[in-house]
Amino acid sequence: MNDEKEDPMDLKIFDRMESEVRGYVRSFPVIFSKARGSELYDEDGRRYIDFFSGAGTLNYGHNNPVLRERMMAYLEADGVTHGLDMATSAKKYFMQTLARLVLEPRGLDYVLQFTGPTGTNAVEAALKIARQVKNRQNVISFTHGFHGVSGGSLAATANRKFRKAAGVALGNISFMPYDGYFGPDVNTMAYLERMLDDPSSGLDHPAAVIVETVQGEGGVNVASQRWLRELERLCRRHDMLLIVDDIQVGCGRTGSFFSFEAAGISPDIVTLSKSLSGFGLPMSLVLLRRELDVWEPGAHSGTFRGNNLAFVTAAQALETYWADGALSEEVAAKERLVRDWLENLAHSCRDAGLGVRGRGLIQGLVAPVGEGLAGRIARRAFEQGVVIETSGAHDEVLKVLPALTIPRELLQQGLQIIERSVGEVLAGAGRPTRTLKVAGGGQ
Amino acid sequence: MNDEKEDPMDLKIFDRMESEVRGYVRSFPVIFSKARGSELYDEDGRRYIDFFSGAGTLNYGHNNPVLRERMMAYLEADGVTHGLDMATSAKKYFMQTLARLVLEPRGLDYVLQFTGPTGTNAVEAALKIARQVKNRQNVISFTHGFHGVSGGSLAATANRKFRKAAGVALGNISFMPYDGYFGPDVNTMAYLERMLDDPSSGLDHPAAVIVETVQGEGGVNVASQRWLRELERLCRRHDMLLIVDDIQVGCGRTGSFFSFEAAGISPDIVTLSKSLSGFGLPMSLVLLRRELDVWEPGAHSGTFRGNNLAFVTAAQALETYWADGALSEEVAAKERLVRDWLENLAHSCRDAGLGVRGRGLIQGLVAPVGEGLAGRIARRAFEQGVVIETSGAHDEVLKVLPALTIPRELLQQGLQIIERSVGEVLAGAGRPTRTLKVAGGGQ
Amino acid sequence: MNDEKEDPMDLKIFDRMESEVRGYVRSFPVIFSKARGSELYDEDGRRYIDFFSGAGTLNYGHNNPVLRERMMAYLEADGVTHGLDMATSAKKYFMQTLARLVLEPRGLDYVLQFTGPTGTNAVEAALKIARQVKNRQNVISFTHGFHGVSGGSLAATANRKFRKAAGVALGNISFMPYDGYFGPDVNTMAYLERMLDDPSSGLDHPAAVIVETVQGEGGVNVASQRWLRELERLCRRHDMLLIVDDIQVGCGRTGSFFSFEAAGISPDIVTLSKSLSGFGLPMSLVLLRRELDVWEPGAHSGTFRGNNLAFVTAAQALETYWADGALSEEVAAKERLVRDWLENLAHSCRDAGLGVRGRGLIQGLVAPVGEGLAGRIARRAFEQGVVIETSGAHDEVLKVLPALTIPRELLQQGLQIIERSVGEVLAGAGRPTRTLKVAGGGQ
Amino acid sequence: MNDEKEDPMDLKIFDRMESEVRGYVRSFPVIFSKARGSELYDEDGRRYIDFFSGAGTLNYGHNNPVLRERMMAYLEADGVTHGLDMATSAKKYFMQTLARLVLEPRGLDYVLQFTGPTGTNAVEAALKIARQVKNRQNVISFTHGFHGVSGGSLAATANRKFRKAAGVALGNISFMPYDGYFGPDVNTMAYLERMLDDPSSGLDHPAAVIVETVQGEGGVNVASQRWLRELERLCRRHDMLLIVDDIQVGCGRTGSFFSFEAAGISPDIVTLSKSLSGFGLPMSLVLLRRELDVWEPGAHSGTFRGNNLAFVTAAQALETYWADGALSEEVAAKERLVRDWLENLAHSCRDAGLGVRGRGLIQGLVAPVGEGLAGRIARRAFEQGVVIETSGAHDEVLKVLPALTIPRELLQQGLQIIERSVGEVLAGAGRPTRTLKVAGGGQ
Repeated sequence: MNDEKEDPMDLKIFDRMESEVRGYVRSFPVIFSKARGSELYDEDGRRYIDFFSGAGTLNYGHNNPVLRERMMAYLEADGVTHGLDMATSAKKYFMQTLARLVLEPRGLDYVLQFTGPTGTNAVEAALKIARQVKNRQNVISFTHGFHGVSGGSLAATANRKFRKAAGVALGNISFMPYDGYFGPDVNTMAYLERMLDDPSSGLDHPAAVIVETVQGEGGVNVASQRWLRELERLCRRHDMLLIVDDIQVGCGRTGSFFSFEAAGISPDIVTLSKSLSGFGLPMSLVLLRRELDVWEPGAHSGTFRGNNLAFVTAAQALETYWADGALSEEVAAKERLVRDWLENLAHSCRDAGLGVRGRGLIQGLVAPVGEGLAGRIARRAFEQGVVIETSGAHDEVLKVLPALTIPRELLQQGLQIIERSVGEVLAGAGRPTRTLKVAGGGQ
Repeated sequence: MNDEKEDPMDLKIFDRMESEVRGYVRSFPVIFSKARGSELYDEDGRRYIDFFSGAGTLNYGHNNPVLRERMMAYLEADGVTHGLDMATSAKKYFMQTLARLVLEPRGLDYVLQFTGPTGTNAVEAALKIARQVKNRQNVISFTHGFHGVSGGSLAATANRKFRKAAGVALGNISFMPYDGYFGPDVNTMAYLERMLDDPSSGLDHPAAVIVETVQGEGGVNVASQRWLRELERLCRRHDMLLIVDDIQVGCGRTGSFFSFEAAGISPDIVTLSKSLSGFGLPMSLVLLRRELDVWEPGAHSGTFRGNNLAFVTAAQALETYWADGALSEEVAAKERLVRDWLENLAHSCRDAGLGVRGRGLIQGLVAPVGEGLAGRIARRAFEQGVVIETSGAHDEVLKVLPALTIPRELLQQGLQIIERSVGEVLAGAGRPTRTLKVAGGGQ
Repeated sequence: MNDEKEDPMDLKIFDRMESEVRGYVRSFPVIFSKARGSELYDEDGRRYIDFFSGAGTLNYGHNNPVLRERMMAYLEADGVTHGLDMATSAKKYFMQTLARLVLEPRGLDYVLQFTGPTGTNAVEAALKIARQVKNRQNVISFTHGFHGVSGGSLAATANRKFRKAAGVALGNISFMPYDGYFGPDVNTMAYLERMLDDPSSGLDHPAAVIVETVQGEGGVNVASQRWLRELERLCRRHDMLLIVDDIQVGCGRTGSFFSFEAAGISPDIVTLSKSLSGFGLPMSLVLLRRELDVWEPGAHSGTFRGNNLAFVTAAQALETYWADGALSEEVAAKERLVRDWLENLAHSCRDAGLGVRGRGLIQGLVAPVGEGLAGRIARRAFEQGVVIETSGAHDEVLKVLPALTIPRELLQQGLQIIERSVGEVLAGAGRPTRTLKVAGGGQ
Repeated sequence: MNDEKEDPMDLKIFDRMESEVRGYVRSFPVIFSKARGSELYDEDGRRYIDFFSGAGTLNYGHNNPVLRERMMAYLEADGVTHGLDMATSAKKYFMQTLARLVLEPRGLDYVLQFTGPTGTNAVEAALKIARQVKNRQNVISFTHGFHGVSGGSLAATANRKFRKAAGVALGNISFMPYDGYFGPDVNTMAYLERMLDDPSSGLDHPAAVIVETVQGEGGVNVASQRWLRELERLCRRHDMLLIVDDIQVGCGRTGSFFSFEAAGISPDIVTLSKSLSGFGLPMSLVLLRRELDVWEPGAHSGTFRGNNLAFVTAAQALETYWADGALSEEVAAKERLVRDWLENLAHSCRDAGLGVRGRGLIQGLVAPVGEGLAGRIARRAFEQGVVIETSGAHDEVLKVLPALTIPRELLQQGLQIIERSVGEVLAGAGRPTRTLKVAGGGQ
């Protein structure tokens, strides 16, 4: 990092005016001013390759020109910007496009609920309707799960840092071990089945199960397709709804539009947000099996549930990227590239105990817990121009999360920097300071 | 309503694809396509005067040209759109502007917490930090209070429709009667004081009180300045934090930037959202007295807490409208106009039992409960080209909520239509159908 | 108090071995060894008149000889002592006797549920079945109400000392003001009605209301018969069950067997304990309207719910005292005696601001809050040989609670000592030390 | 069962007057009238051998003559019967005796808290003080654990039948797998350790762990000494209090006075009840490490916490049975007898898939789940004169729970009847009706 970056004047106002709760500004202590595709620029004009993508919000890159053009045309035409849940032309068009390009081709008959435009709001709505439908309060969530920080969602979020901040006890959620939680030899689904089958396990009959197919914040933990299918089977057998929280890994992150397509399961409820608008604009959506739609009119509200600019870019994103299978193929190819690179890297630093896991374009380089290694690598990579975050209970996983549309050259450049950073950190060149990662990309 | 509006083709896709939870689309069954200032246009080009303002989100009107210009310039320059809580130039500029034009002139030393960009997210954060600081779980909220529908906020929202939808019991909140709840002769603050002073009242020592100075959703109930001061005194005496939820009536709605300025009170925590961005874009903010900022880094997160387009328009809105006292004066003048008009109207239909209440440019025409009068008036007004909603526990209050910047002519036109609608409804011309108002503008 | 009493050897073992939670041993710092009727004796043979009656557990006095004889005969005959809820001869006979002498004469068709033999266990069962029947979680309880300290009951107990001890937030209960809570001029039932009628009051639809007709622990607060009838009417109108907690003031304390008979109301559920066994033995009972009995077999259990010795003495107590109206008449006569005495006393010390309230043989001498007067009187009375406790949120009420069977002479002796104690304390003779009352008779 | 037993007249009053919640009266449909030692007699004079012992309450048999004599002498001398928590001679003597014979010889420095005289009340107090001391709300309980049915304890009770009856969500408890829950090859303590060590497991930091060393109601599940020691170690490492609920298997049931002595662990809190009085009288006790005694005076109350008759028999029971090691040796000898018998029985009916588990004089004959075998055996045994219950999540365990003092001949007679019943049931002689076991001995 050059000297200008360290100028404390730059960030002083953030230290002085912003709450201690601030996070990423500590990991990336520069002021960003411009962004294009997979490149960010700070106020001094320094360029950064984005391997972070707004924690999964920018699957199509920053300031995607096609989307931007569409939005600006809409603005210039005095299109409705804020619409609560009034009918607007933009909303109508988004719904039609979603039906045409996503739901109908996949044979999905979901009803749409537009919630307040944050992921946590979608999760809140999903949990509410599940509990209403089943008239039960308990819901199963998983170790390392992250579903947001508002009261209802927070109860389903496993991380103690977020939970403690609530200041109240969080209830009505039972945590169960995610796939692989006890290592590769333990089938955690058998554990869950035992608890459900046993009327004296202490587990109150759940209304639903909420699950991420890949736990992004939790450390790039990947549920196997078999585990997901077993979970679906258990849900059917025990009359529980299956909620897939696809906020971070939906919208193409794993290759297919929904992350659960490969497993061949049919969730009862799906939550989407983050990359849904395609442009980084706040937008959220709950997909409900039609027969679950017992909502009373207006019983879940939200001022910004009609963010029409997001509807405009979301529709355009679907048209641009989901009218055919090109993007999925591109993701598959880049997955191979990233995966190979990371596995070679892990292999070449055998003593470091590194591992790799992930699916699609969310790949984690897993360091041993307790050494702060991943944090130091992320820091060193940032100094060399790559924006990348860590995740996992101990921030032990370097999370490679580029835009799906990142040019292959940039992707390789970024990987080279990471490779170099790993080498330097392992060689002791990285400053062994306390990891600065604090944020939790959140939703 | 003319025939084209009734064409079922138009709205069929909303009926088919959208959840039953949808609300305003039922009250205003047309498809809006354009909006400018205080005017909305549907797909057939019909014009509507906006007396609704996105439930308080559009204080400066739709597509405000100054703000739009600024935003488009930002977009064209590849400004960062999505930034989590990384430092960006746009965020820095917003903070500087807020300090210069709002906080410093008022002598306020608040720390800023940017939360997920919905009001309920800001409320969640406010409740969390209050409970953390005081290490107590209970919080006082008021009858008819509305603070959002995510788990933590929902517990503080009084309306049974929203509460029942949770599917779980909502706790850690004690409801107390708002100013005037038992009529003008009962001092509800004495009631609260009795409960607090009595160690055997059943009221667990609260960490905080959360209050709206004017309850928008709750029926345009106005707390007197004396009551608010007494509340502040009680908070001090019983070591409770005072949280003012200024999401709906802050940002100038009552004339001053904050709604509590006239009462001369100093809340410990303030929540802002809705009109904060000035352009209808999702954005929220919590203001905390500096000594309350015990947040751990990253302990409250949110993917869209850095909606930079909103920072850009928010800063511009402050510069355009809050650099001097002109807007406040304008609001005061329009308040007089609206208030006089409504009082004359109420007076001239004496037998109807109408009343008027409000503060600034949130004024309610209060109809007797149980007759669906307000709903029929709103419906009739909409048929004649005014978008207006009802509020209150029984939807008995017609809520006049125009943009603060509405031209005087449009304001008068709208009022004339309302006056005419009242007359027609009272004369039996309004169809005495079940009120369609279902939405709850929410936050 | 003579010197031997002060011998620290006596009570040292209690200080050393018993938890700090101990209460009455602090108020009455002697070791009691014998008891007969309304007289207690300590280890030095000193006699005390009992105006406390085990917090309402000894309505027929200590070691009532008729009951004791019956119990001893049962023991000698190897009668079953401990029976869980197996059928036993003693239980059968108690049920038959209760039906014959209590339920049938009053036309009551209650089903009996024998719970664990503490009042709080009965309250727990009552709350459970009410919530099951109505499939709602909220229950209304009243300011100053006391219903026990186990988790479910504790939530309905108003006193902060007990509530804080839980270490968890207590939910699913809404507290409403008891009759007279805001003084004689405010009709608190109108308040409750307003909250119930208003769908936006924040009050979730309750399954039930739990109420004491006289609040013993809460300060001898007496609900008027009109208020109780209004409460019953509200329960019917809002589909809530009416639970009368008659643990402290049932079994003849107010003259009739049930305390609610005079008001002419018909509770859906009644809880009994304390004096039910007649001999101070642990026993509890829930009376349920037959149609509410949706219990699943064994779904509420308890090791000691078949305390057969208590069944034996309880049946005998009914036969001895409730076969005719003699006891009720006796209570009425003694009520007049006590009431007149206390009112004269209050009247004669006008400047002291004393008041009197109560019903039947639970009468309170109410002192101004904040001076510790009632505590000092109780202490002085104890020094002169009367065991009497205080109650109320501030321990400001001297609670006169003799056995219903107390001989008139003893009653008068006790009242004379109280009168003298009042005089001495008001004259400054009482040591103005910190009140030692800490206990909370509890259930 | 002979014809008189079937006479419906006998039990009609129970069917008519008692709530559907009744349990054991269904399993043992006769009216018991007398009991002596390990023998019960019904109204027709038929004798039953007691292998049930009041669900562990009658370790010294029914109407133990030494205890009865002491109690009757106390009654005749007008000893105090009901004493709240006033000091009495009987209470003093009990405390001295407990110190002398139990605490001091074992080097235990516990403070005593006398709670309401039911096990659940003791558990409520234990949980409260643990949460107060640690200022945390969560507590760990185990699968199949049973700790009572009042609100606080019920949350820690695993059985769904009891939990559902609450009518409210039960919180602040996390269930973990008990020793052996996943079969002999899985170390469940490693599971718990993983959840505690992982800050993102979803497990909120517990204040305490509550555990039974042998789960009586849960199916005679025995924790190994190693597992208990590991649990203690985890408690120390993670700053959690260790609460041993010794209500069912304390007081000698496993041989030693406390069930945890063999494991060599030192619980922070111990709850006792059931056999504590020795005579089937309601009595409960919490033992607290002295430094945990942060109770405020009177903050946990209970009308019957001073059941002095129980103090009298409890002291006598300690003197009679715990002044030397004779009873422990007797239990060990009988354990071998029962264990051998059952193992031989299981071995001789190999195809039946029976197993045996237990410790001391709580031994279970475990039948395969789903066939109702244990229930049919219990029923057949009852027809032949043995009172015995089943336990376990599926009532699949026949629980052999004789008095510790049962004469060897009676014990063998009972075992013979069980052996015969097993044979008959396996041979198809047992009526394959629905198991009637419904009760849940409870506490």
